[in-house]
Amino acid sequence: MLYFENDYCEGAHEAILKRLLETNMEKVPGYGQDPYCDQAKEKIKAACGCTDGEVYFLVGGTQTNAVVIASMLNRYEGVLSAVTGHVNAHEAGAIEFTGHKVLPLPQKDGKISAADLKNYLETYYADGSYDHMVFPGMVYISHPTEYGTLYTRQELEDISGVCRKYEIPLFLDGARLGYGLVADTDVTLKDIAKYTDVFYIGGTKVGALCGEAVVFPKKAPKHFFTMIKQQGALLAKGRLLGIQFDALFTDNLYLEISKNAIDTAAKLKSALKEKNYQFFLDSPTNQIFVVLENQKMEELGKKVKYGFWEKYDDNHTVVRFATSWATKMEDIDALIEIL
Amino acid sequence: MLYFENDYCEGAHEAILKRLLETNMEKVPGYGQDPYCDQAKEKIKAACGCTDGEVYFLVGGTQTNAVVIASMLNRYEGVLSAVTGHVNAHEAGAIEFTGHKVLPLPQKDGKISAADLKNYLETYYADGSYDHMVFPGMVYISHPTEYGTLYTRQELEDISGVCRKYEIPLFLDGARLGYGLVADTDVTLKDIAKYTDVFYIGGTKVGALCGEAVVFPKKAPKHFFTMIKQQGALLAKGRLLGIQFDALFTDNLYLEISKNAIDTAAKLKSALKEKNYQFFLDSPTNQIFVVLENQKMEELGKKVKYGFWEKYDDNHTVVRFATSWATKMEDIDALIEIL
Amino acid sequence: MLYFENDYCEGAHEAILKRLLETNMEKVPGYGQDPYCDQAKEKIKAACGCTDGEVYFLVGGTQTNAVVIASMLNRYEGVLSAVTGHVNAHEAGAIEFTGHKVLPLPQKDGKISAADLKNYLETYYADGSYDHMVFPGMVYISHPTEYGTLYTRQELEDISGVCRKYEIPLFLDGARLGYGLVADTDVTLKDIAKYTDVFYIGGTKVGALCGEAVVFPKKAPKHFFTMIKQQGALLAKGRLLGIQFDALFTDNLYLEISKNAIDTAAKLKSALKEKNYQFFLDSPTNQIFVVLENQKMEELGKKVKYGFWEKYDDNHTVVRFATSWATKMEDIDALIEIL
Amino acid sequence: MLYFENDYCEGAHEAILKRLLETNMEKVPGYGQDPYCDQAKEKIKAACGCTDGEVYFLVGGTQTNAVVIASMLNRYEGVLSAVTGHVNAHEAGAIEFTGHKVLPLPQKDGKISAADLKNYLETYYADGSYDHMVFPGMVYISHPTEYGTLYTRQELEDISGVCRKYEIPLFLDGARLGYGLVADTDVTLKDIAKYTDVFYIGGTKVGALCGEAVVFPKKAPKHFFTMIKQQGALLAKGRLLGIQFDALFTDNLYLEISKNAIDTAAKLKSALKEKNYQFFLDSPTNQIFVVLENQKMEELGKKVKYGFWEKYDDNHTVVRFATSWATKMEDIDALIEIL
Repeated sequence: MLYFENDYCEGAHEAILKRLLETNMEKVPGYGQDPYCDQAKEKIKAACGCTDGEVYFLVGGTQTNAVVIASMLNRYEGVLSAVTGHVNAHEAGAIEFTGHKVLPLPQKDGKISAADLKNYLETYYADGSYDHMVFPGMVYISHPTEYGTLYTRQELEDISGVCRKYEIPLFLDGARLGYGLVADTDVTLKDIAKYTDVFYIGGTKVGALCGEAVVFPKKAPKHFFTMIKQQGALLAKGRLLGIQFDALFTDNLYLEISKNAIDTAAKLKSALKEKNYQFFLDSPTNQIFVVLENQKMEELGKKVKYGFWEKYDDNHTVVRFATSWATKMEDIDALIEIL
Repeated sequence: MLYFENDYCEGAHEAILKRLLETNMEKVPGYGQDPYCDQAKEKIKAACGCTDGEVYFLVGGTQTNAVVIASMLNRYEGVLSAVTGHVNAHEAGAIEFTGHKVLPLPQKDGKISAADLKNYLETYYADGSYDHMVFPGMVYISHPTEYGTLYTRQELEDISGVCRKYEIPLFLDGARLGYGLVADTDVTLKDIAKYTDVFYIGGTKVGALCGEAVVFPKKAPKHFFTMIKQQGALLAKGRLLGIQFDALFTDNLYLEISKNAIDTAAKLKSALKEKNYQFFLDSPTNQIFVVLENQKMEELGKKVKYGFWEKYDDNHTVVRFATSWATKMEDIDALIEIL
Repeated sequence: MLYFENDYCEGAHEAILKRLLETNMEKVPGYGQDPYCDQAKEKIKAACGCTDGEVYFLVGGTQTNAVVIASMLNRYEGVLSAVTGHVNAHEAGAIEFTGHKVLPLPQKDGKISAADLKNYLETYYADGSYDHMVFPGMVYISHPTEYGTLYTRQELEDISGVCRKYEIPLFLDGARLGYGLVADTDVTLKDIAKYTDVFYIGGTKVGALCGEAVVFPKKAPKHFFTMIKQQGALLAKGRLLGIQFDALFTDNLYLEISKNAIDTAAKLKSALKEKNYQFFLDSPTNQIFVVLENQKMEELGKKVKYGFWEKYDDNHTVVRFATSWATKMEDIDALIEIL
Repeated sequence: MLYFENDYCEGAHEAILKRLLETNMEKVPGYGQDPYCDQAKEKIKAACGCTDGEVYFLVGGTQTNAVVIASMLNRYEGVLSAVTGHVNAHEAGAIEFTGHKVLPLPQKDGKISAADLKNYLETYYADGSYDHMVFPGMVYISHPTEYGTLYTRQELEDISGVCRKYEIPLFLDGARLGYGLVADTDVTLKDIAKYTDVFYIGGTKVGALCGEAVVFPKKAPKHFFTMIKQQGALLAKGRLLGIQFDALFTDNLYLEISKNAIDTAAKLKSALKEKNYQFFLDSPTNQIFVVLENQKMEELGKKVKYGFWEKYDDNHTVVRFATSWATKMEDIDALIEIL
């Protein structure tokens, strides 16, 4: 069986495991106060060009979204997100569980536009009874999006401009950020630090056992540490996160290993094009969405694990093939042969 | 100045005030345990044909929606509502404040359809990872809707059928229920009790100073009383609500006074048609939505208070004229003259 | 049967009903934007000596506590309260429902002391891991307390001093404030406005049908109006609250009618002393707590309704007799005869 | 510097790291659906003698408490806990953040008694207005407690008996369960499974990098999986938890490595007794609490890291020495020399 179901089916990159082993019996303080966390934070801030910022390590993606959003919103505010955004669609109501509404925005290929955002805000404040509604208090975007697509630098700048005009923070979910940074893009880590107010660098899907690095390019909300604990997201052995991110941000490992996902995805895309498969949309990163005739899909399912995405029509389904830092080119070849 | 801004700009029907005066110095237990509450509950259950059901009195509409929904949902569930539903759009996030997501459904003239509901539920459960999402745990409809429209008996039966198949309760928001019952409709109070699992009979907008009567045709959730208190919705002097609903459900007062809103609205609609005003939609109840050219709207605003509803296009706006139990026909005449 | 069960068993003072009748058919804006609310607010601010402050009207006591506390706390904060405080003991967890912990302080006769408060705060911040605990973010006191006792001006000043040193707001629950102000006390409404950051003037228990006036001597939290709505506490016909408080703060009515509760309670206390009843504690206001032998209590229960308070020992119980603005001296005489 | 600050300052037991390495590149499903989780669950259920039960893996202790409690309580219920219980005192309000009150019970050496519990419940239901208060919906105990003490089997049986009489679940927090099971005790894992309704087996403090195994001896709450996700506690790479617990429950490793903490603690306690140190209380497990004169404490602090526990009096402080699965006997010897 070939596995292209998701980008988190293996363990961790060997460099990470090596560091965990080497440091295992050192005695260090808990809750992220250890030297490995410190060191990793400095490396991340340097890579992001925000040495005066703050970095916190959390365990997983939904958790990170819920902690960041619930910590930055005032209680009368909700978070704006593409209707297809992970926080709106796939997190079991984790945001609402903290008392906040997700305010859906139109999307195209998983992305929102500065124009739609501006229109939403203008319309909201033009309504005479806006104080009977949920205040838009934050903008959430993902990069890559849930559809593997990327914002351009100009798009980020424009969205950021609207946010700053309305004084609401911009939050970028980077669960798969590594794959976004090494794809065909003009957006760098420093751009992201420049245009957003908070973002996270995904570890779980890019080589770590677990862990997401939340970066506040300027300043974290007051008592963010306590709010992490309050949401049950504070790891006692914070070293587990610090050591992993320290390894990932040493010698450019994070970006280096991300390239493998892009290279393997590129080869797969070429083959799919050649074989005239119908793409659901054009994704420049490690997720490939194709429309399969249902019977074809079922047959394929006997040999390959893929992600079932959504119904396309009565006879067709959108499926996802995901590559990762760990995908072997030989598995791509095997898949191509089957297709 | 003429007032057609809303249906809650006067105090209460005189029969209610009379009863409040007559009973004022009687000493009765608090928290809805008084004989007036008991008596009103019996009359309401009789009118609804559900003498084995339960009735509770709450103070206002948003409060009632939040208490009912948060009491009936399991914590992993959200409530399905038309995207234009009051709970989704105009309650400052009161539902989300209790931890639950509002799951938007498509709407037409403020109404959802059984087909769309069925499609939502089928699609939800067909998704292999539905347990990563918010379970649809309840259906919210309003009748009349936020646009003054009404479900037919068949539509109610169909929606109810889908709910029962999926074992999720159907909740009908009757903030303006009186006006819905005396309009041109085949839906009676008994039909509503038959097809829903909980609904409320609006007092605030239909002759009372405040108060909504929540009816559970079969059974209230366990410890509903305590949950009312927990949400700060329990009135110490529950008599205030009991006496009002007792008056409203004596000698058919509730429906009698509702007719005035329909009659006055009908006259206004005729005149608007005659004068070739553009209706935004066709509402059979006490809310009339017309599309006005912006300059016309502003001029009108000097003599009449109306509700600003939404932007129609750059030059036009949708405004609402609302009549009520208290609207005088002479004010309608005066308005028609101005139009 | 004689009623001394509580201070909310009658309707409203006749002056209030009169005003409700007189203004009933006037058409005014909703949600507290009407002239009666405006007028009542000005009168209240004048009476409190804080003409630059803000006043909001809410419906009931538990609701007011929940709305005020949840609006003023940061999400990582809890509210300090006497362990016997209403918010800790008798509100069905309404504060916790909004996500905040009630942090219990020791009490004596229902009151906290500045010394205990200071000690709590010092100990809290002396703990090296205080950021793993709930930040003390507000102090809640009631005046009169749940036991009818009163703070002296000096005690209020001292508690206020500790709060200001630690920059946490002081909130005074005045559900029975009228009775506290006309008892034997050196505390005035202006003192309360001076020493607290927010307090409320209870209407429900002091002559109104419902309603509590929340006073922010300086400034309300940002978007307090929206948070009222978000918690389902915004009354559509806000006039109902405005008109009542306008009446209560016209010609000193609020204090005038409060005196009756104190006068009737004083007479009852004298008689109880004379008859050698055991007082549970010495309350200067309208609530009298006596320890009754259980059989005596049961016999009394055939002729008088009182409040069952708490078990004293296996053979005795603490019961409460409450007087109010509406208590008739002849009922006191009748009660004394029975005792 | 010697480290006795806590029991989570090292990484993981080598057997765990070995298994993580061996399985690292295997491709397995996410979210705990992998074969290692399955296998670990079976081993745990066998060890607990509840093969029909359910096991779930969560990441940390506060998270586990918050997820379990918030999933098992009805929304009108709170959780009973010793006033010193971790959920009441040291979790930043994580339980209240989910909307539930922690109802404090008296404690002795960190333990509650069946008698106090029974008394609380009897008093609660004897109060005529109990439905205005928070329903006691669950009992939380820790074993070992926050003070390292243990319940006897009889005590557990008695507490369990009260819970079952009142039909409220008993939850045992076993963050340090291993140390409790191998200490001088008559309580086995099977006893715990017999007397509780849910408990967890702590990994973080007993040899794992992270992870707690929640055991429902009978049945988990409906949709527990979704509620884990809703609280941000679902690990994408669930294998990380499954592999660790699989290792810990293979060849009795969990109990084997726990013994080291007890053996090293025993030696330290002997030496402390010999040197006439004052014990704050008598703990049979891996946490030792002694009362130190403040100056002595400070001097000691130059050579040893210990836990600052609480102020004892103006001149003395309670400090904690913690041993663990990883503590070396030579470090104990070194500490004894310093004392």
